[in-house]
Amino acid sequence: MASRRQAARFLLQCKLRPQLASRRSLSTFTSSTSSSSPWARYAGFAAFGLIASVPLTYAMAVTEPLSMDSLSLADRDEQQKKNEGVSEASPMRLRMEKFIKEQQDHIVKALEELDGAKFRKDEWQRKEGGGGITCCLQDGNVFEKAGVGVSVVYGTLPKPAILKMSANHKNIAPNGEVPDSLEFFAAGLSLIVHPKNPMAPTVHLNYRYFETAKPDGSSGAWWFGGGSDLTPSYLFDEDAIQFHRDLKDVCDKHNKDYYPKFKKWCDEYFYNKHRGECRGIGGIFFDDIDETVSDKENTFAFIQDGLKSFIPTYVPIVLKRKGMPFTEAEKEWQQIRRGKYVEFNLVHDRGTSFGLNTPGARVESILMSMPLTASWRYMHEPQPGSREARLVEVLQNPKEWV
Amino acid sequence: MASRRQAARFLLQCKLRPQLASRRSLSTFTSSTSSSSPWARYAGFAAFGLIASVPLTYAMAVTEPLSMDSLSLADRDEQQKKNEGVSEASPMRLRMEKFIKEQQDHIVKALEELDGAKFRKDEWQRKEGGGGITCCLQDGNVFEKAGVGVSVVYGTLPKPAILKMSANHKNIAPNGEVPDSLEFFAAGLSLIVHPKNPMAPTVHLNYRYFETAKPDGSSGAWWFGGGSDLTPSYLFDEDAIQFHRDLKDVCDKHNKDYYPKFKKWCDEYFYNKHRGECRGIGGIFFDDIDETVSDKENTFAFIQDGLKSFIPTYVPIVLKRKGMPFTEAEKEWQQIRRGKYVEFNLVHDRGTSFGLNTPGARVESILMSMPLTASWRYMHEPQPGSREARLVEVLQNPKEWV
Repeated sequence: MASRRQAARFLLQCKLRPQLASRRSLSTFTSSTSSSSPWARYAGFAAFGLIASVPLTYAMAVTEPLSMDSLSLADRDEQQKKNEGVSEASPMRLRMEKFIKEQQDHIVKALEELDGAKFRKDEWQRKEGGGGITCCLQDGNVFEKAGVGVSVVYGTLPKPAILKMSANHKNIAPNGEVPDSLEFFAAGLSLIVHPKNPMAPTVHLNYRYFETAKPDGSSGAWWFGGGSDLTPSYLFDEDAIQFHRDLKDVCDKHNKDYYPKFKKWCDEYFYNKHRGECRGIGGIFFDDIDETVSDKENTFAFIQDGLKSFIPTYVPIVLKRKGMPFTEAEKEWQQIRRGKYVEFNLVHDRGTSFGLNTPGARVESILMSMPLTASWRYMHEPQPGSREARLVEVLQNPKEWV
Repeated sequence: MASRRQAARFLLQCKLRPQLASRRSLSTFTSSTSSSSPWARYAGFAAFGLIASVPLTYAMAVTEPLSMDSLSLADRDEQQKKNEGVSEASPMRLRMEKFIKEQQDHIVKALEELDGAKFRKDEWQRKEGGGGITCCLQDGNVFEKAGVGVSVVYGTLPKPAILKMSANHKNIAPNGEVPDSLEFFAAGLSLIVHPKNPMAPTVHLNYRYFETAKPDGSSGAWWFGGGSDLTPSYLFDEDAIQFHRDLKDVCDKHNKDYYPKFKKWCDEYFYNKHRGECRGIGGIFFDDIDETVSDKENTFAFIQDGLKSFIPTYVPIVLKRKGMPFTEAEKEWQQIRRGKYVEFNLVHDRGTSFGLNTPGARVESILMSMPLTASWRYMHEPQPGSREARLVEVLQNPKEWV
């Protein structure tokens, strides 16, 4: 096996066009998928729904006389990046990867400028394919913690995962034939920012792309997901309105149905069920945007606009709030709200919990979302009529902000 | 239905012997069990395994001409307590309830004496039957947070839960006939104590009893579970040895096999899988002690000894550590360890997560286990050779302490 892989690597070095190389039989991938990435499982649970109608011709592996080890999707993409770079003609995988890495740099720079402190940057590889870049700023001047992470994952879905996905994505298993395994690609940018000042809200954002590969390496099923939501400890209506208006503007530019649908989805997803309240004042959340909703180009344009709107939407809010005076009691209230944020992330968030339950996951990247500090006070109740009570009331009864 | 219940209540007031009253058809309970308590679900997931061999004659409901509302197990027990009090001849349900409530008082008094501050005491009722007493001391002199809770739950297991349990407890469904529903009783005492001083360890303890009812109200399947474990931020070997020795002494008095078996079970259960380390330095954890292991009387005696040993085991450790000097960095390390405690409780602990996912649960009683404060620092690693590093090494490789 090792020598077969060496041969394949050699072919790579010889700049053999990946499309000409034979594929390793998909069934040989199965064993490695027991440790499928949190991303894959997240995608499997949180990021599917609608399906693409591209047929997957599963058993199309080309047999070569030498029975040489085939090139994986990751190998082919790596090859293509080296040989041709990434352009608008490249596969969406490469374009999405390039875009989110650029945005990560851009966001990190903007937040560093605002804070004055620097992010720590960790690049990591995933044994099974792909890797990521985790950027974290901790105990800064403005931010208690800010994490901006990019993951690019190549992997193989095992049959049970395909079976699960095929319930909502019929053409992952065309004609009802479920393959033993299927190569996939997943890439996303996630960020969470917890400011120090209790008047400045926490924000979360995630944009992601998922696709499965046809045996020839072209994309099979694909979909985008994403969104952004705001979690204040103290509610300033003007901030909530501005945040939602900016998101609505981005949505409306692409589809007038998006904002109302994704706003509702957000309120439903970021719901701390056991507390009977939303995590924050919402924003947008969506998944499964595929060709049954819009075409790939236009959806990518929407994703790009959404992600690009983050800095111009969030930074003005922080600028207004970061210097406001606050009391010790207000800081304490922020800490209690942080505790509920932790509860959502560890109990209800599908991405986090599947990640943590996946062997070999990079736990520090997943838990970068945790606040630096949090508190739990038994039976803490805000005073009736207080600002704290008003926040809770809004969290229990999500408002229409625009 | 309301008037039928009134009739039953009236009969109760008339001191009708519960055994003479007819039972409400079990099938009428099914709808109310969709909100079965976290305790019931916990018992269903974490507290079963072996089974009692008492046959359950499920369809034995007595039909009365008036079709009067029957008395539930809770009604009967309430009646019996009023009429006869609780003695050694009473059903185990009543004896266990009495015992854990006495112990709760005893433990609360002992911790108050040590701390100087008082516990807040909340009594609560469970709509579906039973209730509890939650005692919490917060931000005291010695303890950051101490919670001692008793729950006594009467409820009805729906068919899917019985089916699930019957995999390990065959005589919950004798002859393979799974009833549509089954009354159950569950009672337990849980406590968690988080001291302020980082040199003093957090401790957790839980002892519980579960049984299902035969149609005549006598007990069907039954089992005990419990244990106690210690979570230091700074490891003092002498404390770990003393804690384990005390638990071993209690175990050995009843069965020489208990300690090694339950010590191992504890290391396995309180394992923060995603961190690859145990929550703390362990103790004992067990479940499913029923008549296939020991008889009910002897098992209750073991449970009593275990619970009674808590104060004499833990208090001396706190007395030694509560006044020790510590640095800011050591306090910070404690906060990081607290974060991992939160992770275990919210991600892996079956009792907590089923509780939180159960509608109508008393969330504040479940999350009383949370520390007052916790912290998450991205990529925090203890210095090689430090006391912090030694703790982590022991958490990764559980030791035999006695």
